[in-house]
Amino acid sequence: MSTISRNDFLLSLASKDKNNFDSYIKHLHPIDVALYLERSTDEELDTFIKFTDVNYRARILEQASIDMQIRFLEVLEYEEIVDLFALMSNDDVADTLGNLPIHKRKALLNEMKASETQTIETLLGYSEDSAGGIMTTEFIALKKNLNVKDALLKIKEIGPKTEVIELIFVIDEEQKLFGTVDLRDIFVAEDKVLLEELTNIHVVTVYPETDQEKVSLLVSKYDLKAIPVINKQRALLGIITVDDIIDVIVQEHTEDMLRLAGVRGQDLENRSVFSSVQRRLPWLMINLGTAFLAAFTVTLFESVIAQVVALASSMSIVTGMGGNAGNQSLSVVVRGIALGELDFKKSWSLVFREMLVGITQGAIIGVLAGIILYLKVGNIMFGVIIFMAMVMNMLIATSFGFLIPLIIKRFNFDPALGSSIFLTASTDIFGFFIFLSLAKLFLPYLT
Amino acid sequence: MSTISRNDFLLSLASKDKNNFDSYIKHLHPIDVALYLERSTDEELDTFIKFTDVNYRARILEQASIDMQIRFLEVLEYEEIVDLFALMSNDDVADTLGNLPIHKRKALLNEMKASETQTIETLLGYSEDSAGGIMTTEFIALKKNLNVKDALLKIKEIGPKTEVIELIFVIDEEQKLFGTVDLRDIFVAEDKVLLEELTNIHVVTVYPETDQEKVSLLVSKYDLKAIPVINKQRALLGIITVDDIIDVIVQEHTEDMLRLAGVRGQDLENRSVFSSVQRRLPWLMINLGTAFLAAFTVTLFESVIAQVVALASSMSIVTGMGGNAGNQSLSVVVRGIALGELDFKKSWSLVFREMLVGITQGAIIGVLAGIILYLKVGNIMFGVIIFMAMVMNMLIATSFGFLIPLIIKRFNFDPALGSSIFLTASTDIFGFFIFLSLAKLFLPYLT
Repeated sequence: MSTISRNDFLLSLASKDKNNFDSYIKHLHPIDVALYLERSTDEELDTFIKFTDVNYRARILEQASIDMQIRFLEVLEYEEIVDLFALMSNDDVADTLGNLPIHKRKALLNEMKASETQTIETLLGYSEDSAGGIMTTEFIALKKNLNVKDALLKIKEIGPKTEVIELIFVIDEEQKLFGTVDLRDIFVAEDKVLLEELTNIHVVTVYPETDQEKVSLLVSKYDLKAIPVINKQRALLGIITVDDIIDVIVQEHTEDMLRLAGVRGQDLENRSVFSSVQRRLPWLMINLGTAFLAAFTVTLFESVIAQVVALASSMSIVTGMGGNAGNQSLSVVVRGIALGELDFKKSWSLVFREMLVGITQGAIIGVLAGIILYLKVGNIMFGVIIFMAMVMNMLIATSFGFLIPLIIKRFNFDPALGSSIFLTASTDIFGFFIFLSLAKLFLPYLT
Repeated sequence: MSTISRNDFLLSLASKDKNNFDSYIKHLHPIDVALYLERSTDEELDTFIKFTDVNYRARILEQASIDMQIRFLEVLEYEEIVDLFALMSNDDVADTLGNLPIHKRKALLNEMKASETQTIETLLGYSEDSAGGIMTTEFIALKKNLNVKDALLKIKEIGPKTEVIELIFVIDEEQKLFGTVDLRDIFVAEDKVLLEELTNIHVVTVYPETDQEKVSLLVSKYDLKAIPVINKQRALLGIITVDDIIDVIVQEHTEDMLRLAGVRGQDLENRSVFSSVQRRLPWLMINLGTAFLAAFTVTLFESVIAQVVALASSMSIVTGMGGNAGNQSLSVVVRGIALGELDFKKSWSLVFREMLVGITQGAIIGVLAGIILYLKVGNIMFGVIIFMAMVMNMLIATSFGFLIPLIIKRFNFDPALGSSIFLTASTDIFGFFIFLSLAKLFLPYLT
């Protein structure tokens, strides 16, 4: 698609070359144009606005990032913005408004027609991460007593304004969701057949306050093209389409992965060193605390280490292996929770299985470590001690790695949030303690 | 949706209660039935097959997991399987066949009609993770010189057999992909208008050998409903729909997350302790090797530690913090690569930014660690040494964390694969070496 490079595109703006610009955007997808504009100067953005009509600008604004939207709207007059909004779908307008400072948002809502602001204000009321926050109000809802012929006429009329056309939502006399009809079934039915006869009434629905992650799990589990959002009275409020769900899934994955490593935020596009440090430092600080706790554990055994210095080098093998084994359990569980396969209530008892995994791994790794250490130090007791410590620390690693995310989730926090820090704190502290305690116990055999 | 529990459902099969069973499956989504059957006994599965007709069985088989499909097909006769396949889409049949042992696959292909096996054998030839492996051959392709009226008649006729109906693929006289038409545009056009006038010719396409991860990035970037798969001659081979892309995204992310922690495979549903150990042990073994390397580094400084035992407890603070800071860089980069935002060619120079992040974090954490250690040990030099070691090790951590995944990806391996192990090996070995070298250098001031 994007055969025109960002440099060429921005150059046409910088040099105010309208001919080149026009020929370029003909070959560029609006999403690429929006991406290219991210790197534009304010002057280039000005030129872009001069070169394009309000229709094209609306398409670009819908695709732009939050930062870009704000820059875009700073350049335009209020009236121009209102014209632009009139060409965008309500949910995109609400998203854009939601990112503006409150005074600007209010001023713009005042400028807009009352008929338009009502839906937008309702949409603005939902949390960004909820079904209400990501739903669109552009969909086709037809009465269940409509016949196929009239339904097709309606679909042809409303279709171009909606996001999904393959799935038609059917409502009853009281505007309540009755079910969905597949457009294919309407196509093959006789003219006189009523929609209610074609309707699938077993429809998966969500409420506006449902968390977007839950919505994405339902859509992906049931391979849905769109999912209706209803209120407690089953009135149809909006729909969420599968392409918006893809954005949710990608965003939630990024969050999970970064949080697990203790990085705040989800936006990867941070250019300043300062903002990177800001996003990573908080968890490193907490980690410094746990690192000193682990170090303190070692301090308790300084007299033992003073007598057998070889303990200093081998103790980190026990903690290092524990940390890694625990992280394996952790990532399996965090992923399982994200996929909706695990939760505290139904899964806590699986911890016994996980403990067995830890003991088995600990025994295998422990025997190997024991043999190597025996050959290196020439003292069989050294090997026995690292074997025992390895089994116990791996048992702690896998069971803590399994339970920590489930417990964090149980208290309605993100299971990825900091679980890795708590885990390595446990495996370090217990690892040092167990290994050095055993060394102290068997000290006569080590010296 | 699933108001009937798994237990109730399986009970109706165990007790061979056809009435209950029939009323249950009326209220259950086929996907839930497939999930429930995962836990069925062989006898219950037999009963399920007796209770259902071939149409329903085909729907369940399409949704079933690989293990389930294999169990399912073991129970049925070849002829029954061929009847079942006739009701499934070609790509699902190919996927199912692909999971069977070769002798069974060949025997089944022999039983099937030659007209059907041709497409399926072509599909079987593509790698599972490629565009060819996930595409469907059920789509609507119309000639560009067809008019709107005839096109609509064709769509109504073919529609029920296809996966997407909103997007119509248009081909030229030579069967080459010309572009796509939105069904909405066909709806609002006059009867006599030719499809080619409505066609969008700027279409994002992929080849059958394109990696599924790349396909998913394109679909998610351009918000596509379906993406056509073409060969080098632009002949249309198949399409990939957005709901299959969701599965790809979820699967690739699970893989990334588990691989980063050194867990093989992607399937979370492993029930035996043995299989868990099998999937986790290989990386733990490699890790044992790197842990001994790190321990060996410490051994080199045993005489220093023997003189200042306090070093044994503080050295793990340097390595622990390095490991965590490096993992932060690592997860940002691995995610950036997965989202197509980073690659070695265009991003390696960002390592200098990342090094600055490391130095800044190292300085902040180092000052804190230095002060605490000074207060604890009462020797200012101890504080100075841990400060210097922290800055250097965090510099190594962030730059290695940034570069390792990019380099692994450069050689066409999965960037998540083992990068965490290589990283912590580096931060452990360098961390111990730097801290203990500094201690050796300033030994007179420490004792």
